[in-house]
Amino acid sequence: MAPALELLEEPIQSLPTKAFSSAFHAAPAESGLGLESPEKHQRVMGVFRVVIADICEQFGEGHAGSPMGMAAIGIALYKYVMRYSPRNCDYFNRDRLVLSNGHACLWQYTFMHLVGVESMTMDQLKSYHSAKLDSLCPGHPEIENEGVEVTTGPLGQGLANAVGLAMASKNLAATYNKPGHDVVNNMTWCMVGDACLQEGVGLEALSLAGHWRLNNLCVIFDNNSVTCDGTADVANTEDINMKMRATGFNVVDVYDGDTDVATVTNALIGARSSDKPTFLNIRTVIGFGATKAGTADVHGAALGVEEVVNLKRSFGLDPNEHFHIPQDVYSFFRDLPGRGEAHEAKWQAALAKYREAHPDLADEFALRVAGKMADDWTKYIPHKEDHPSASTASRKSAGVVTNALAQNINSFLVGTADLTPSCNVAYKDKVDFQSPDLRTSCGLDGNYSGRYIHYGIREHAMCAITNGISAFNKGTFVPMTSTYFVFHLYAAAAIRMAALQGLQQIHIATHDSIGVGENGPTHQPIAVAALWRAMPNVLYIRPCDAEEVAGAYIAAIQATETPTVISLSRQGLTQYPQYSSREGALKGGYVFAEAEAEDFDVTIIGVGSEMVYTMQTRELLLKEYGIRARVVSFPCNRLFEQQSREYKQSVLKPRSGKPTVAIEAYPSIGWERYADASVSMNSFGKSLPSKETYAHFGFAPESIAPKVKSLVDEVRRDGIGILRGDFREFNAGLRIGVNH
Amino acid sequence: MAPALELLEEPIQSLPTKAFSSAFHAAPAESGLGLESPEKHQRVMGVFRVVIADICEQFGEGHAGSPMGMAAIGIALYKYVMRYSPRNCDYFNRDRLVLSNGHACLWQYTFMHLVGVESMTMDQLKSYHSAKLDSLCPGHPEIENEGVEVTTGPLGQGLANAVGLAMASKNLAATYNKPGHDVVNNMTWCMVGDACLQEGVGLEALSLAGHWRLNNLCVIFDNNSVTCDGTADVANTEDINMKMRATGFNVVDVYDGDTDVATVTNALIGARSSDKPTFLNIRTVIGFGATKAGTADVHGAALGVEEVVNLKRSFGLDPNEHFHIPQDVYSFFRDLPGRGEAHEAKWQAALAKYREAHPDLADEFALRVAGKMADDWTKYIPHKEDHPSASTASRKSAGVVTNALAQNINSFLVGTADLTPSCNVAYKDKVDFQSPDLRTSCGLDGNYSGRYIHYGIREHAMCAITNGISAFNKGTFVPMTSTYFVFHLYAAAAIRMAALQGLQQIHIATHDSIGVGENGPTHQPIAVAALWRAMPNVLYIRPCDAEEVAGAYIAAIQATETPTVISLSRQGLTQYPQYSSREGALKGGYVFAEAEAEDFDVTIIGVGSEMVYTMQTRELLLKEYGIRARVVSFPCNRLFEQQSREYKQSVLKPRSGKPTVAIEAYPSIGWERYADASVSMNSFGKSLPSKETYAHFGFAPESIAPKVKSLVDEVRRDGIGILRGDFREFNAGLRIGVNH
Repeated sequence: MAPALELLEEPIQSLPTKAFSSAFHAAPAESGLGLESPEKHQRVMGVFRVVIADICEQFGEGHAGSPMGMAAIGIALYKYVMRYSPRNCDYFNRDRLVLSNGHACLWQYTFMHLVGVESMTMDQLKSYHSAKLDSLCPGHPEIENEGVEVTTGPLGQGLANAVGLAMASKNLAATYNKPGHDVVNNMTWCMVGDACLQEGVGLEALSLAGHWRLNNLCVIFDNNSVTCDGTADVANTEDINMKMRATGFNVVDVYDGDTDVATVTNALIGARSSDKPTFLNIRTVIGFGATKAGTADVHGAALGVEEVVNLKRSFGLDPNEHFHIPQDVYSFFRDLPGRGEAHEAKWQAALAKYREAHPDLADEFALRVAGKMADDWTKYIPHKEDHPSASTASRKSAGVVTNALAQNINSFLVGTADLTPSCNVAYKDKVDFQSPDLRTSCGLDGNYSGRYIHYGIREHAMCAITNGISAFNKGTFVPMTSTYFVFHLYAAAAIRMAALQGLQQIHIATHDSIGVGENGPTHQPIAVAALWRAMPNVLYIRPCDAEEVAGAYIAAIQATETPTVISLSRQGLTQYPQYSSREGALKGGYVFAEAEAEDFDVTIIGVGSEMVYTMQTRELLLKEYGIRARVVSFPCNRLFEQQSREYKQSVLKPRSGKPTVAIEAYPSIGWERYADASVSMNSFGKSLPSKETYAHFGFAPESIAPKVKSLVDEVRRDGIGILRGDFREFNAGLRIGVNH
Repeated sequence: MAPALELLEEPIQSLPTKAFSSAFHAAPAESGLGLESPEKHQRVMGVFRVVIADICEQFGEGHAGSPMGMAAIGIALYKYVMRYSPRNCDYFNRDRLVLSNGHACLWQYTFMHLVGVESMTMDQLKSYHSAKLDSLCPGHPEIENEGVEVTTGPLGQGLANAVGLAMASKNLAATYNKPGHDVVNNMTWCMVGDACLQEGVGLEALSLAGHWRLNNLCVIFDNNSVTCDGTADVANTEDINMKMRATGFNVVDVYDGDTDVATVTNALIGARSSDKPTFLNIRTVIGFGATKAGTADVHGAALGVEEVVNLKRSFGLDPNEHFHIPQDVYSFFRDLPGRGEAHEAKWQAALAKYREAHPDLADEFALRVAGKMADDWTKYIPHKEDHPSASTASRKSAGVVTNALAQNINSFLVGTADLTPSCNVAYKDKVDFQSPDLRTSCGLDGNYSGRYIHYGIREHAMCAITNGISAFNKGTFVPMTSTYFVFHLYAAAAIRMAALQGLQQIHIATHDSIGVGENGPTHQPIAVAALWRAMPNVLYIRPCDAEEVAGAYIAAIQATETPTVISLSRQGLTQYPQYSSREGALKGGYVFAEAEAEDFDVTIIGVGSEMVYTMQTRELLLKEYGIRARVVSFPCNRLFEQQSREYKQSVLKPRSGKPTVAIEAYPSIGWERYADASVSMNSFGKSLPSKETYAHFGFAPESIAPKVKSLVDEVRRDGIGILRGDFREFNAGLRIGVNH
């Protein structure tokens, strides 16, 4: 079957787009494509479906229905259409396949086994839903495992990831390909079910894919019309084809997606020559072959012993054989490792020619492939003496760093959810990432080499697409996003997926406190920080001035397997050149200002935009009460927890017998670890000018200092032990408005 | 102008739908509608726009552009189309207006002033963006203020709220209206900008509105084609009309939305007689009249002194007058209070007739209007003796309560994001909320009196729509949602809006721990609880058995101004009839099991599905080490914080000199307030069977007990003081897989 490779690859570019705009109801000519016979396909699909059923039967659970329904699509992709290398799943220019309906993972695992991915043994397949600790077959696909591009499961995420993967290809191609030299030209294939097309994150991402005309993206809709609650029309009766056309997709119908491998294959091949992204609407039957096929009963369950026997009989297979893949079925896929090696060899040859013609670009491209930046990022982090001395919003300080990095290093892709004027991330001489054919009314055009991304008002898709960009190849891109911090709640599920997958990215979160002011409580992100501080593998950093901002960027760039959220103020912040330090920020917390005496009475922790109130309180305490306060700056709890116990104790001095108070315009949760009391937010915010908002909620030094004084007095009188298990909320009495 | 009322109201029902299906480019006959002259409209709009500009000029900031662009739409709605009562904004059968583009709030505030909402004085209008504490004009509309239906601002939310408001009307109408007696027949009008149509939550909600054929909903698109980053085509080039048609909307174009009040009015009136929800695509110019009109420059800024002078001149107004509304403009709106009173009187008369014909229904309806339930809910909470004694998943225990409540009390609207088989919320004899015309393939049909809602796979819209249902009228509905807990991250922005607005609702969150098992880390909600525990005005309750589940429901129903999240297990949980108590659960935390001796050595806090490991650890500690442990159950931190200091200290005994350890399969954040150490999650989860997952992450009693013992030993040796500022993470060493 080796000839299939050439036969498949060559005709693709020459097929006119129009040919694929109409329904594929009548099968097109197969002869030129080197397809195996329909009978052979039925045979392979029968065995595949039965193996899926057997695997789910082991533990009486799992998702059997979708994988069974997607058998023909799988053969079309894995055997005929996708360009990949089973023996080297990380081959750089491979087609990316995303299984956005991640619960159908057995489909992917089983095809990986069939095409010769060596780690995916039959024993591994049988570990699905088992207690095996080193299983490569978890209940949803995980990026750590060979052959999996992104971790999927939460529905709609994978679809947005696929858009990001397609953007990454487009950007690299536009940056490095030269006439006669295509060093990046891979496709992105994305399997979706009904759910991914209902979820908002999927819909946002589809809008963008259409807008950007990502014709290297093919969305394959496993249209089995069944969801958990019944048939999909229980909750959805829209005209999906019309909607996808309106969204800018080339829409192709395939009606017999259960058996007609040839038609599915042709439709997939057609996607390669579309001038738009392609949406293949493939009708399938969930649990094809089972008695309850086509119903919700086969979605998230094993079929049952008797049903599996029937299924095997109906496909002409022996009911007494389990997990059995006959040799002729293995043979059907035997050519794929060799074809994969040929792909790789061809790419290597292309690279060698490219190096001859464009040696400098080839060097740079090699660095990107190796996950390295083409320039030394450290030289673009401002020095301490470069910072302004006047009050400066930290979003502006951050903008300076983003500007320097993004102008000079093309690993950075900088995006915004329609907040260019607010987030300060637009860099000098930026080129927008756009289809080169787009002509906007305001003249903001661009091309695919552009690295400034207008995501529109779509925070969730922005972050989920960013995951795809990060996942394209480790280190090739360091994507950045930007929006108001409160809108991280729109994108939380996507940022969580970045943390879970260990994807590096930088989220610029501006307007991060009640200092946002007049926009009011809807825009004041009271509880959002608690989510990121609790979330494993997220660095949430709230710098207090330009110097700590520098530290935040250093931490973010050094954290190559972690998303970082840099949390920034809208309002101007006092700069503290004599106190703040990037080295301190990199430790998460550090002594900012010692007491102005040998001994001290209290430690006050200040964070981000509340540092000014902390320092003012320190001053007032001394002036009014003679109380000597030392101040700790605490931009990042996770970095602090990574320090030694000795360091932590040297900063917070818990054994000193002196109390500690934290000042932050967020809820107190988390501060109990480091402090005895806090000035916190116990309600949502209020629409007032910035300073008045702080004063209203008790953050003025005049409100804080007397409370600190009485705590100090109490400890002097009764000893530090009385504070055990009795955390003090200095603002507890403040219950404002209707908030509770 | 009083005749306009009748003229406007009567023709509406008789107009055929088709007449409104095509573009309104040519103005329809106005004569019958009693409209004022185009010249008068220009005059009123000129004054309106200038007042907006003056208000923003005061502090040199605010959103002027959209309100100015929406002047004609405002006149059409407030003067001609909406049925409401300016002197009684809470009139029950009023049309609901949602300003989903909440930054345009000055538009709403200024029209409220003009039509005679008494609290909305000119002084109030001038308080926009001021430091005035009792301003009724915050930067986004807030539900607490007269005449505002829902708090909006985070984009897309209001659109979904409007869908909920329209559902509420449909449900009440289908439940209480009888032939000849329409006691509920209000419309819902929703203003949206580009953003609401880009945000996923808006797109999800639109799909549902189309599916449900909510023809009492009219979405009014202020299509000014400008967003913060430039013209909207920078990030969006889809065919919105085609998309909305595909989604099931009646689409109507209006091309001259800046000046042609008559055409806008007719298009709005047409929406009342559509058989589908209506989407009015109204072209406007942002900042109409200003030099920079039609650009992003006028979106979120004041115009500047000179520009305001020009603006006034161009509208023939005196540049030296500020905030000036001439008497003829007030006169233009003078009839509205009277018309509003007529609406109310008509409704009261209809109610009186209804009472004669249907006295029982009228009694029930009166209760619903008063925000009361038609039956005593307390009798449907299971008694302690009704609980099963065998191991039972808490999702099942909760299902029993949901069933009893929803079967018997029609204030409960129960929804699910396509997880009917998993969330146990489908109740006996449920009727699905559906268009009565819908015929599904699986036969799950329904009608608008149905109270079981299939939201599809749209968690965000589910929760945002739920906010609209709650906001329809306080207490009329107690909506419930259901999904897996991890998917609360999809809906977080909406649940936050419920908390901010004080909206009662119950969120059933199943599969709430690593016990989810095989679905793996994508489905194990490690950090989600921290968000709800930090969020003001959210009750997050994690019951450990059926008795605590009963307590959770009692708390949720009693919390009439608070959303409650009831957090439930997938897996079976040991029942503790001799220890658990609903009264204890209602206090948030309580002594579950005293040590089996007079004194004790350690307190262990157990929560939800980890209670079983807590109790097993207690047993093992005694057996292996002779250590006497008392156990505290801690289902809800916020309820606990509402208790007296004495109560809290009696439960946790911080002054006993004995250590406290918390056991929960979430991060430790928050436990530092109550405990000295914790058995927590420091990474994401893993795909394994439930029990094996717990064991893998160190939750087996055999792993926990030795660590507790050594803590007890340490405290015995060195005293409790050594634990100060030194919180112990018993699982700190467990860094598993690629998670960090």
